Amino acid sequence: MKVFYSPEHQVHDPENEFTNAGAIPYPECARRATGIAAALSSNPSFEIEMPETIAPIALETIHDTGYLHFLAQVYAGQRSHTVELTPTTFPSRGRGRRPVTLKAQAGYYAFDTTPLTPGTWDAALTAAGSALTGADCLLEGARSAYALCRPPGHHAGRDYFGGYCYLNNAALATEKLAAHGRVALLDIDYHHGNGSQDIFYDSDQVFFVSIHADPDYQYPLYWGYADERGKGVGVGKTRNFPLPPNTGDKAYIETLDEALHCIEDFAPEYLIVSAGLDICREDPLGDWAITAEGVAQIGARIATAGVPTLLVQEGGYDLRDLGANVRQLLTAFI
Amino acid sequence: MKVFYSPEHQVHDPENEFTNAGAIPYPECARRATGIAAALSSNPSFEIEMPETIAPIALETIHDTGYLHFLAQVYAGQRSHTVELTPTTFPSRGRGRRPVTLKAQAGYYAFDTTPLTPGTWDAALTAAGSALTGADCLLEGARSAYALCRPPGHHAGRDYFGGYCYLNNAALATEKLAAHGRVALLDIDYHHGNGSQDIFYDSDQVFFVSIHADPDYQYPLYWGYADERGKGVGVGKTRNFPLPPNTGDKAYIETLDEALHCIEDFAPEYLIVSAGLDICREDPLGDWAITAEGVAQIGARIATAGVPTLLVQEGGYDLRDLGANVRQLLTAFI
Repeated sequence: MKVFYSPEHQVHDPENEFTNAGAIPYPECARRATGIAAALSSNPSFEIEMPETIAPIALETIHDTGYLHFLAQVYAGQRSHTVELTPTTFPSRGRGRRPVTLKAQAGYYAFDTTPLTPGTWDAALTAAGSALTGADCLLEGARSAYALCRPPGHHAGRDYFGGYCYLNNAALATEKLAAHGRVALLDIDYHHGNGSQDIFYDSDQVFFVSIHADPDYQYPLYWGYADERGKGVGVGKTRNFPLPPNTGDKAYIETLDEALHCIEDFAPEYLIVSAGLDICREDPLGDWAITAEGVAQIGARIATAGVPTLLVQEGGYDLRDLGANVRQLLTAFI
Repeated sequence: MKVFYSPEHQVHDPENEFTNAGAIPYPECARRATGIAAALSSNPSFEIEMPETIAPIALETIHDTGYLHFLAQVYAGQRSHTVELTPTTFPSRGRGRRPVTLKAQAGYYAFDTTPLTPGTWDAALTAAGSALTGADCLLEGARSAYALCRPPGHHAGRDYFGGYCYLNNAALATEKLAAHGRVALLDIDYHHGNGSQDIFYDSDQVFFVSIHADPDYQYPLYWGYADERGKGVGVGKTRNFPLPPNTGDKAYIETLDEALHCIEDFAPEYLIVSAGLDICREDPLGDWAITAEGVAQIGARIATAGVPTLLVQEGGYDLRDLGANVRQLLTAFI
């Protein structure tokens, strides 16, 4: 099984996250991805390859031109790891215009206090490259592939960042494959994939299904409720399964089976999995109780869909077990 | 000159503000208002009175019912000063629904990381009371009055808080007076009064004029540009005068004269002044160079409008000089 990974992600490594409890060490750290890469490299079934370098124009299939300009230019020419730009003011609910100054645009393009650093753009570009190279891999006939993306992507929309995400890696791969057939995008991250949902909300070519912590108590708070089902020709092509605190293997697998049944009805030609491992019981950002054995079962169930599948790394913040959990998830695909 | 002030504001006194540079001591502190009250109490020309107690229903002339319910209930029954709820996630540009849980609604109703505390509602209610009692004072025939409001109000909109503001004191007074005649609302705070502008943007009964730091470099960033002029019947009834860093007395007074000329053309029956003293040269949040003498001139120029005038306290964070600066501003009105 091919794994697409570039160590370039390490140029993006913010120091702090602002939370309601004050500043904490940034959970979405470079060690997450280096740890996964190390865990996979010990098994020869995983062929770790560098992704292709992509041109920013390739991102315009999903992302807004002004937004991409902002991300690419706000720290143009700087590479310091220590400078951070944290948005603190936001154009609330539809009002407010985009300022001319790039630094003042940060909150305009954000929906939370996720920081930008001088390395963010380069790191995000290689993560997007891993997902797009993974999509190419399926188009060339592979049954499965894994894009070890960092920073993650599923909270990023056409023109906004947040939740540690800047470019929507899974959505970019989905859009690329959607030119060749129907695509199901299954988001199993602990947090709702609001960016992905938003991007494909009015599409009938992409079926978005997400299983996540109930947004009424958990980030991202304003999206991911069960009655969000799509719009226009996309009505019925979005499905959300919010779950309560302490969700364990049994309840999760039952919900996953229901989600996979919906996907089966859609009869996709390709499957993208937004693979967040923050569902696991030791994860510092989650409150579920999924075991390592549960993760292996989740992977095995998804593999029964029987369509070419690209797994794209999203969240997962338990540095000790993250690599092993990814390996568990991928076992059924090798 | 009557001054309306309640010491109740002190139950709202957050510890920290989250900024791009990390947490800093909260600039909008209780000592601001107690200092102003002390500075005025030494002069018998100022008659300091308690405002009338207002019922929350009186706020519905301006504010959204759901928003008021949130503010009143999120900390219902708690009075601890040390608990703070800081919004960190926001429904970006029109998307996202209101969660059921009150604490999860904080970011839904906010446009920045301004915190809520258990005392916020009570403090905001008395500040609104001061402004509304001030409006009554004009209706009873007074030529001028001053509402020593804290927390301030001009960044708060119908259904959002931010910029240290929760209830829009000046807008509440304006709306009350607008039932009796045309009202001009002149905002001289260093920061654009985005909430006030938003509330009266489509009104032809209220003329909103603001002189402030250019939003392209200064908070609130997304509002306050010169070409924002109102909409519908309100077109032409909003005027913005953004000014550059280091603005001094001369440039300011020239702009103020232009603003007052616009107000004169509108021929209001009442004038509300959103009085922020963060325009002064020692202010830690501003970068202008207005002197104490300049402040006295500003007050004198505004007084020449010759209509019943209510001054409502907004910003101003230089604890040493704030009281003296307010006294300077009010001199022409006593």
